[in-house]
Amino acid sequence: MGSTAAEPTTLPLTRASVVAAHALIKPYIHLTPVQTNTTLSTLASTPQSPEALKGTPWEGQPPARPKIKLFFKCENFQRIGAFKARGAFHAVRRLVERQGLEEVRRRGVVTHSSGNHAQALALAAQTFAIPAHIVMPAISTPSKIAGTRAHGARIYFSGPTAPEREAVVADVLRETGATLVPPYDHPDVILGQGTMALEFAAQVDELVGGRAELGVHREGGRGLDAVITPCGGGGMLAGNAVALRGTGVRVFGAEPSFQGADDARRGVERGERVRSVRSLTIADGLRTPLGEWNWGVVADEEFVGGLYAVTERNIRDAMRLVLERVKCVVEPSAVVGLAAVLFNEEFRGVVEREAGEEGWNVGVVFSGGNTTVEAIAQIFREVPEERAERQEGVVGMDGERVAENVAG
Amino acid sequence: MGSTAAEPTTLPLTRASVVAAHALIKPYIHLTPVQTNTTLSTLASTPQSPEALKGTPWEGQPPARPKIKLFFKCENFQRIGAFKARGAFHAVRRLVERQGLEEVRRRGVVTHSSGNHAQALALAAQTFAIPAHIVMPAISTPSKIAGTRAHGARIYFSGPTAPEREAVVADVLRETGATLVPPYDHPDVILGQGTMALEFAAQVDELVGGRAELGVHREGGRGLDAVITPCGGGGMLAGNAVALRGTGVRVFGAEPSFQGADDARRGVERGERVRSVRSLTIADGLRTPLGEWNWGVVADEEFVGGLYAVTERNIRDAMRLVLERVKCVVEPSAVVGLAAVLFNEEFRGVVEREAGEEGWNVGVVFSGGNTTVEAIAQIFREVPEERAERQEGVVGMDGERVAENVAG
Repeated sequence: MGSTAAEPTTLPLTRASVVAAHALIKPYIHLTPVQTNTTLSTLASTPQSPEALKGTPWEGQPPARPKIKLFFKCENFQRIGAFKARGAFHAVRRLVERQGLEEVRRRGVVTHSSGNHAQALALAAQTFAIPAHIVMPAISTPSKIAGTRAHGARIYFSGPTAPEREAVVADVLRETGATLVPPYDHPDVILGQGTMALEFAAQVDELVGGRAELGVHREGGRGLDAVITPCGGGGMLAGNAVALRGTGVRVFGAEPSFQGADDARRGVERGERVRSVRSLTIADGLRTPLGEWNWGVVADEEFVGGLYAVTERNIRDAMRLVLERVKCVVEPSAVVGLAAVLFNEEFRGVVEREAGEEGWNVGVVFSGGNTTVEAIAQIFREVPEERAERQEGVVGMDGERVAENVAG
Repeated sequence: MGSTAAEPTTLPLTRASVVAAHALIKPYIHLTPVQTNTTLSTLASTPQSPEALKGTPWEGQPPARPKIKLFFKCENFQRIGAFKARGAFHAVRRLVERQGLEEVRRRGVVTHSSGNHAQALALAAQTFAIPAHIVMPAISTPSKIAGTRAHGARIYFSGPTAPEREAVVADVLRETGATLVPPYDHPDVILGQGTMALEFAAQVDELVGGRAELGVHREGGRGLDAVITPCGGGGMLAGNAVALRGTGVRVFGAEPSFQGADDARRGVERGERVRSVRSLTIADGLRTPLGEWNWGVVADEEFVGGLYAVTERNIRDAMRLVLERVKCVVEPSAVVGLAAVLFNEEFRGVVEREAGEEGWNVGVVFSGGNTTVEAIAQIFREVPEERAERQEGVVGMDGERVAENVAG
């Protein structure tokens, strides 16, 4: 589909390009809030118990002792409920610059997505009175179909597989001459997603510098030391890495390990992009393999400091903490970064070694909050045995760690 | 217990007293954010369908057509996850002023509560190194007991009934000489809760005046026209009413109707306070009858413009909307104000008549967010038949109203 996609932007993948992207999309997106939470920062700074490490790759090892102050970038409060609005608005704005508004309005835009990108592109297109053609699997949840349609998009149903989906996209392209705006594998999309990092760094600077009453432990100190984001197709991770390169803020990615959804980590390990993923991880936004453009950034250690995998249980435990302590509604994909900070000993060891006694201010991106009460109930209904263990205090968020922190 | 309670403050129940309370507690509480949501404002401004009114007192009547822009004061992000921190900090600060810090530290404070006030008083006492004695029913949920204990409070267990609870409190008073800080029926507590109204009004002024990009429909226009809060014991409602009297901002209260939990509304109707409530409404923070001090304010139409009751289904529907659209975790008690705005035709009629074409900026207080994923699952598992109806678009948030608004 390369030839029918939007022509690659002339903007290089640099921080300056992200700054330009931010200027362009600022009127159309929310400046999402940054939250802190004493309970979770204390939990992140408390070693996991030997019990909690049983059955993990780190069983029997002494637990890491990192010092971590957490900051949460709440993209669940972004328009359409997820960060995808940033990339979609940027891609559409750049397309209008290249083709002219009348031409874009004549031809329209097209994408395939069952999730947040569909709604994001529909909203961005609607804002400029551009027709949007969205190809969705017929099995998509009714609320997502309704959400996309509510923004005036025309929906095309396809079968669930990639070839079926692409066949319908090809039909639309032929009939309409619309331009493809892919969900993550495009420089305009990467630069758009990176805009969150500019806001995040500035917001944490302000919090750390100006408001000692928030309990920030280093008055007047530096802001973010590191950012960790979820990684599915890699648009957000690559965008953050591009935006923060050269600033001294390290960027890390987190993935689910379930059924090989940690394709970026595995690809970097073997030196070659993993092109196909078939995972049914509960982090359903992260079931896709890393895109080509995204791989170019994510696999480059000048950009991304490391990739860390988390289990389904880690994701559920992190999601519970965000819902019950931070009081934010997040989708499972949104908490894999926090899960890595709390439960991945490899990441925690990095922080312990590199940050030492002083600790790090770690920025965690909550990527989106598009879920339902039924989905939440389903996620926590699945695992009664985990619940029993949790109440006995033997799993991830074990008794000792929570006892110190509850309701802070 | 009147003689053992903190002596009534010398401060009268006036706006000036709330301003003084705010100055006193500001360093210890969060300035909680105010959120807006296009979807919910549109929904509030869309008439309910005749179908949705079937089986309600308004069946067969033409639905009201109010114009409403909603603003949410997110006290679920307050310390300990609920507004109760305000009243507790204020009561403790005033007690220290009257008795002296050393005396308060020697005698301690005591209260009975199974919920948010227990944690709030424990936190406030801990902040000033004051011993806190908290009487809780032995059947309280373990997480709330742990949360209270985590703030260093000493827990005393009692039976579930009021006499059993009061007997234990009397024991503690005898043994320790501690001062009782009641959960709502005290001027210091009322004035403390009222501080949220000062912030709320100022925050909305800023949003309406300064930031047209948020989609506020009246640039440079006035701020809040009305505030609606949940009403249980009445501390928050009375506090808001005291804080806003004379400002032109009207104040309303909302209650669950289930098993007579709308005791304030019924009391005002018959001209006498209802002294006892036995309701198991899912809004478990609102099962208590209005307190005496609170009645003095709430029953006075100079302070409170009206009280409106909502059904359990209304509460669930509102809670779903807040979780899924606003992406905020709220407890059922927190959404009865929103439920009244969306579903109570009497309230909606008032707005239509008084605000006319220009509409009202209605401030809704989300009082707290202390719930669990299991409790959320339970609330929405209870009613499969409602879910089926909802998916067919025949209940409260009916098809037509949501179709226009989904994912906004």
